[in-house]
Amino acid sequence: MQQIDSEIEKVSEIILNGLHKRWDSMPKQPVKKAIIAMTEKLQHILFPGVFENTDIRTLLEDFSHELSAQIKLALRHELQYRNSAQSEINDAALEITLKLISKIPVIKERLETDVEAIYNGDPAAYSKAEIIISYPGLYAAMIYRIAHELYLLSVPLIPRIMSEHAHSVTGIDIHPGAAIGKYFFIDHGTGVVIGETTVIGDHVKLYQGVTLGALSTKGGQSLKSVKRHPTINDNVTIYSGASILGGSTVIGEGVVVGGNAFVIKSVPENTRVSVKNPELQFKSSGNTPASKELDQMDFWYYEI
Amino acid sequence: MQQIDSEIEKVSEIILNGLHKRWDSMPKQPVKKAIIAMTEKLQHILFPGVFENTDIRTLLEDFSHELSAQIKLALRHELQYRNSAQSEINDAALEITLKLISKIPVIKERLETDVEAIYNGDPAAYSKAEIIISYPGLYAAMIYRIAHELYLLSVPLIPRIMSEHAHSVTGIDIHPGAAIGKYFFIDHGTGVVIGETTVIGDHVKLYQGVTLGALSTKGGQSLKSVKRHPTINDNVTIYSGASILGGSTVIGEGVVVGGNAFVIKSVPENTRVSVKNPELQFKSSGNTPASKELDQMDFWYYEI
Amino acid sequence: MQQIDSEIEKVSEIILNGLHKRWDSMPKQPVKKAIIAMTEKLQHILFPGVFENTDIRTLLEDFSHELSAQIKLALRHELQYRNSAQSEINDAALEITLKLISKIPVIKERLETDVEAIYNGDPAAYSKAEIIISYPGLYAAMIYRIAHELYLLSVPLIPRIMSEHAHSVTGIDIHPGAAIGKYFFIDHGTGVVIGETTVIGDHVKLYQGVTLGALSTKGGQSLKSVKRHPTINDNVTIYSGASILGGSTVIGEGVVVGGNAFVIKSVPENTRVSVKNPELQFKSSGNTPASKELDQMDFWYYEI
Amino acid sequence: MQQIDSEIEKVSEIILNGLHKRWDSMPKQPVKKAIIAMTEKLQHILFPGVFENTDIRTLLEDFSHELSAQIKLALRHELQYRNSAQSEINDAALEITLKLISKIPVIKERLETDVEAIYNGDPAAYSKAEIIISYPGLYAAMIYRIAHELYLLSVPLIPRIMSEHAHSVTGIDIHPGAAIGKYFFIDHGTGVVIGETTVIGDHVKLYQGVTLGALSTKGGQSLKSVKRHPTINDNVTIYSGASILGGSTVIGEGVVVGGNAFVIKSVPENTRVSVKNPELQFKSSGNTPASKELDQMDFWYYEI
Amino acid sequence: MQQIDSEIEKVSEIILNGLHKRWDSMPKQPVKKAIIAMTEKLQHILFPGVFENTDIRTLLEDFSHELSAQIKLALRHELQYRNSAQSEINDAALEITLKLISKIPVIKERLETDVEAIYNGDPAAYSKAEIIISYPGLYAAMIYRIAHELYLLSVPLIPRIMSEHAHSVTGIDIHPGAAIGKYFFIDHGTGVVIGETTVIGDHVKLYQGVTLGALSTKGGQSLKSVKRHPTINDNVTIYSGASILGGSTVIGEGVVVGGNAFVIKSVPENTRVSVKNPELQFKSSGNTPASKELDQMDFWYYEI
Amino acid sequence: MQQIDSEIEKVSEIILNGLHKRWDSMPKQPVKKAIIAMTEKLQHILFPGVFENTDIRTLLEDFSHELSAQIKLALRHELQYRNSAQSEINDAALEITLKLISKIPVIKERLETDVEAIYNGDPAAYSKAEIIISYPGLYAAMIYRIAHELYLLSVPLIPRIMSEHAHSVTGIDIHPGAAIGKYFFIDHGTGVVIGETTVIGDHVKLYQGVTLGALSTKGGQSLKSVKRHPTINDNVTIYSGASILGGSTVIGEGVVVGGNAFVIKSVPENTRVSVKNPELQFKSSGNTPASKELDQMDFWYYEI
Repeated sequence: MQQIDSEIEKVSEIILNGLHKRWDSMPKQPVKKAIIAMTEKLQHILFPGVFENTDIRTLLEDFSHELSAQIKLALRHELQYRNSAQSEINDAALEITLKLISKIPVIKERLETDVEAIYNGDPAAYSKAEIIISYPGLYAAMIYRIAHELYLLSVPLIPRIMSEHAHSVTGIDIHPGAAIGKYFFIDHGTGVVIGETTVIGDHVKLYQGVTLGALSTKGGQSLKSVKRHPTINDNVTIYSGASILGGSTVIGEGVVVGGNAFVIKSVPENTRVSVKNPELQFKSSGNTPASKELDQMDFWYYEI
Repeated sequence: MQQIDSEIEKVSEIILNGLHKRWDSMPKQPVKKAIIAMTEKLQHILFPGVFENTDIRTLLEDFSHELSAQIKLALRHELQYRNSAQSEINDAALEITLKLISKIPVIKERLETDVEAIYNGDPAAYSKAEIIISYPGLYAAMIYRIAHELYLLSVPLIPRIMSEHAHSVTGIDIHPGAAIGKYFFIDHGTGVVIGETTVIGDHVKLYQGVTLGALSTKGGQSLKSVKRHPTINDNVTIYSGASILGGSTVIGEGVVVGGNAFVIKSVPENTRVSVKNPELQFKSSGNTPASKELDQMDFWYYEI
Repeated sequence: MQQIDSEIEKVSEIILNGLHKRWDSMPKQPVKKAIIAMTEKLQHILFPGVFENTDIRTLLEDFSHELSAQIKLALRHELQYRNSAQSEINDAALEITLKLISKIPVIKERLETDVEAIYNGDPAAYSKAEIIISYPGLYAAMIYRIAHELYLLSVPLIPRIMSEHAHSVTGIDIHPGAAIGKYFFIDHGTGVVIGETTVIGDHVKLYQGVTLGALSTKGGQSLKSVKRHPTINDNVTIYSGASILGGSTVIGEGVVVGGNAFVIKSVPENTRVSVKNPELQFKSSGNTPASKELDQMDFWYYEI
Repeated sequence: MQQIDSEIEKVSEIILNGLHKRWDSMPKQPVKKAIIAMTEKLQHILFPGVFENTDIRTLLEDFSHELSAQIKLALRHELQYRNSAQSEINDAALEITLKLISKIPVIKERLETDVEAIYNGDPAAYSKAEIIISYPGLYAAMIYRIAHELYLLSVPLIPRIMSEHAHSVTGIDIHPGAAIGKYFFIDHGTGVVIGETTVIGDHVKLYQGVTLGALSTKGGQSLKSVKRHPTINDNVTIYSGASILGGSTVIGEGVVVGGNAFVIKSVPENTRVSVKNPELQFKSSGNTPASKELDQMDFWYYEI
Repeated sequence: MQQIDSEIEKVSEIILNGLHKRWDSMPKQPVKKAIIAMTEKLQHILFPGVFENTDIRTLLEDFSHELSAQIKLALRHELQYRNSAQSEINDAALEITLKLISKIPVIKERLETDVEAIYNGDPAAYSKAEIIISYPGLYAAMIYRIAHELYLLSVPLIPRIMSEHAHSVTGIDIHPGAAIGKYFFIDHGTGVVIGETTVIGDHVKLYQGVTLGALSTKGGQSLKSVKRHPTINDNVTIYSGASILGGSTVIGEGVVVGGNAFVIKSVPENTRVSVKNPELQFKSSGNTPASKELDQMDFWYYEI
Repeated sequence: MQQIDSEIEKVSEIILNGLHKRWDSMPKQPVKKAIIAMTEKLQHILFPGVFENTDIRTLLEDFSHELSAQIKLALRHELQYRNSAQSEINDAALEITLKLISKIPVIKERLETDVEAIYNGDPAAYSKAEIIISYPGLYAAMIYRIAHELYLLSVPLIPRIMSEHAHSVTGIDIHPGAAIGKYFFIDHGTGVVIGETTVIGDHVKLYQGVTLGALSTKGGQSLKSVKRHPTINDNVTIYSGASILGGSTVIGEGVVVGGNAFVIKSVPENTRVSVKNPELQFKSSGNTPASKELDQMDFWYYEI
């Protein structure tokens, strides 16, 4: 015990005096747990009657109080507010909160189109309530739609904490900066990645493992405001494992992209793109006669 | 504040009077949190002695009480019970609960074969207790085996909420409708998707990113009762990233499917299927002499 | 009710008398929840000032108390301690705890290089605090670095419970046995798998879906101490979906591996490896004129 | 540490091998926390609309499940059930639960008379809701009325755990065996004690510190079924600190008992009983002229 | 089960259709739990550095948000707001909250005199921090001082919920309407009752069981605004069990009231009032020689 | 909002800059919640098998860890440790913890005599388990017996926090400094006060409202080490409301003190002391004939 106690003293000293000091001198961070709790409240506001708690006004009051508290913490990290009086930050936080609150009906409207898209598109969907309660694709869309509004209002840190929370829960990683239209449907979803400058139209459906990414240019911070991710027009379906890359890549309206396709140039509207199926090899591992190549169909897209 | 308060009033009005009303008029939903808590109790029942709480009978009593409460909520969503007296729903819920309880020994037996398959198949496994406590593949199998029994008893909503919970925790998405044999082993598991009408035999092993899916037919709800997903016979191993698609695709006994293989036709028993390795290209990016193509081995399957 | 009660009695009997007995006769398991809570405390210790609670010494005292309690439970499962007196186990647990505590400053130092690697490598990163709070790649690295030290101290069960927890939260599956250098950066991360005998140098960056695995030899337990997973030298970047397999596969310094590449032989330093792009096929699905093949660029690696 | 560890081993040994063993051999006890949680649910059932949760049917289902679980534990302590089959105990618990549930409307009706008595009798009462939420006298009455029904059904242990919980919360100690009429009002209440065989009529009001007790006979267990506590008829008011003692003491209808009165014989109806005021003595402690005796009024009863 | 289920249905019906309806038609009540949590926050604000959480500004923000939420609920119960627009209530709640916040420094100042009075008056007091953490008398004073300000601001329900909470925790029942000066000290405290119109000066000390009450007039609601409780001037000490009753009873400066004294007329300043000690009787209960009367001292006041 | 925000800023400033500063400069306090949780663990250790958790060794380890953590905080407040190195405090805390742990078997033994005294003395007691779970008198005795040992080890603050917690729960206020023998029984208990230098023998029984106090001498801190409270010898019973005062007052073996008796001189052994019953007055308040004085019995003691 003495040994452990003295080791603890030693390690405490190292940590308290060491290079970590830079974290201590920073203003207080927004609190992850509070932000998650906050989005849970908003979920109840956005789908009243589906979850237990339905006292909308109280939920909204609490949500707006908690949101503005977190925004105050977040703004302090902004260069422009480093040395501001607290009252200035308070006013800014209040204004942002006000704007976000006023956006809730629009967010709700969009989410209802997402619910409808899933219901119509998934024969396995039992009811809209089931979708709201249990579909990871809808959860990711909801968090995205909230985080995106905060992103547009230039709130630092909080949108990213929200989207990483959704990423953890669903395996779907949507950057809050992406612009996504109505009737959005991600099926299964694990491994989906959607980059910051992606633009997605209405009625788009993605399957698990789809990447909407950037082509590497290694430009680093200098690329920050450049459009690095693709544009997906209306009514596009992208099957599992496909990658669409590059800021000038435009997937035209009505295109279907087959599974595992790797697309880095634009595709004209109403086109089906598929990987030419890689040859398979067969080899008997038992006492079966020698295997032969099997024909494979052309298009890799499929539904589950 | 006044401004925010009045915005909150406005948004509350919109939400309370708007199109969301459809959720309010629906019967109360099963509660996700309660269902998750319930499955945690069942986990303790199924593996007594591994987790802290081992008072089996009390756990079973609580589990059955909570299950029947949630089933009552779920059944109210069924068309056939829309206008039933509560007592009729209560009786049905009780009967289903009774049947599920009676299935627990069988579920337990099957899960013990899964534990054994993992223990024998994974040299990294330290002990069976470790598998039960920490392996995502076993957790997904457990939730699946419970949800599947509820699916067979035609309970709406609850099986899906269970399987999406397992999906969130493990990244493994098994539809409760799939039929899976004994000694089932999913390794690593992130990104695995197993569709509703899949049939899987005994001693099958899957790696991360495997899809057992449907070929697209866009038939929507009309396909609901059609077999759209493959049949995997006994003793099959499917390496990571492979996709097996289509309702009439049958993978014969003893087949090994290599990583990333894309299979949409049946494979005879005791065959090894592998993608012909895509050609790699090499290019020196530094002051090393020009690269040359490397040979690649034939079979993509591997273990981790 | 009587029926359910008697069914519960019956099932309880089966469970209590049945084959499960083997779990009951085992020593008590380490407790998952306690281990997760413990790592949360360590996270606060490692990044003081970023999270709310910053009383380092109290946190360290609690952490070391809880760690030694769990190690006591874990050691009892070791063959060598099966019949030891409790005092012997207590002493061993204390000694291990002491060693782990003394390693914390080193773990902290390494993690700070990881934070820096991410900050420099990701233009989307807003601040180091944001990385610490929300990046799944850093979270996985942190848990790995703790679990790895416990693995080196031959603690059973606990390292695996830790790494599977990180796997559940992030979708990143790093075996505690892997050896990973400084400035480690996993971006997005869902689906990453890093095997037990993998060796990774400094300044390595991985994208989502990368597998560092073993080639199948089906040797089972006999392979336990054999190096089965690849060696990745300094300054290597591996793009999403790539697989590097085999214990003698060495990826030379400065190599870039393109997306989806499947590498099972060593690659010399400063080389770019890429899959030759699979041919795409295009087919008009509407009234657009017939599609044509599109050129594709050579290298599959990209950034998001 | 070693020292503490070995001390802990030693103390554990003593405790585990020592005389405490008698507790271990007893059947499991009812759980205090569960019983408290249960009564909280019943409070919501009895005053729907006053507290947050108002889904009566679900509350009733949960309450009856939890009650029967605790009764099962309690009955096992009864001599008559020491060796019974579990099924026999289950049936008995179910029957008792059923009877208690059927009593709820009556309990509710009585409690509403108590609320009314307080509202009419206390000018400080703002509203009936305030009484239900915050008056200790009503809380004690509620717990008593529930515990009394369980006492009448011969449930061991649970009624006492309930009444001691109310005692802890309010300072009011009502034995579950007492028989109390409608419109019952205890004001302030700290220190009130009401014995097991007390009988109280309608419209009775008690102040803090009132004891309705037994005269000492030291007969111990032999007195168990004897009426040892007084009978208080309708419309009696007893002021603070008064003691009414003895099983044959009857306080007649309409009697008022003054503060601190000590009554051990019956009092005829419509009588005011008061202590003859003890003489006070006055003594100047400063430079005031010598004190003189003050007149005191006859009746000690008062209101606060 | 069926039987219980049908009994539950029946009881639910009775409750939902019965006379309870009057609670349902009332506006929502303030929530007791929220009010208690709120006062806990204020305790941390009032004694910064003594309890763990010391981020004053955040605590104040949360406190004021929660307070105004509860006041909104409470005001709706006021006759004058029965039919007001929500915005009107919101404005009133905001104004009250603002006023309460501005009173905090004064409350804090007063409480610090209470701490000092206890520290100076109680030789058993170890430190001021100990007093703040553990003395029931200080806790009751703190809750009273907060509740009293809300009472002065005419907030319904909340002050009473607060004071009944303190009553439950400490056994001390102070009506929020009482007016109490600085340096207030209640020792032990169980059973103390202080009525609504009591006026207490500075440096007053009370022991357990003291009642500052009203003489009975049975005037009911008509007495609401009448001064019914005594006035206690500066530097008065009242020993345990004493009762001071009546609205025109004035206890002069520097008076000492002995234990169990019953005072219903005014007492001039600097007087010691004591009960003339009741004669004791002694009777040998064993083989000791016959007992004789013992002298008793004149003054009943004492310290513990 | 702006107004409230600026008020909050103002109040924060006042609090942070004001006279409260003295709390901030003090060392950190022991944490009440932690101390309560700790005693709950000890309760489970002392009565194994009665409460749910019975893993004695783990409970003891956690208890000793938490106790030493709180003692470290408490010792820092001692003058002698104001400037000590942390390691010195750690060693002292460890030593005290060790001593306390070694006392647990003795505490347990004493408590078992208390349980027995209650069981034998209270005909209403159903079983010993009931006493342990629900009797306030036993709970107060348990907390006292723990706090007393810490008091003897000169631990500051913690014993008082413990005893005030018991006071809050039971209404029984026992100073940790009192010395109390075996077979101790407090019945009902609300309002009991036992002072710091009280000495109590074996087989003593107290009823509610009993005070064992000091006679006032107003000597303040100078009396700290003087015996100010009475000595109660073996086999004494003191009925409700009685006060025994003064450091040289000795209640001889076998004495019975009647209810409300006020005793400030010693009483020889085997004597019954009772208040000569105060004369009652009767007055008809209705149409009953004039009342007459009632005989009252001599001894005020009684049982409930």
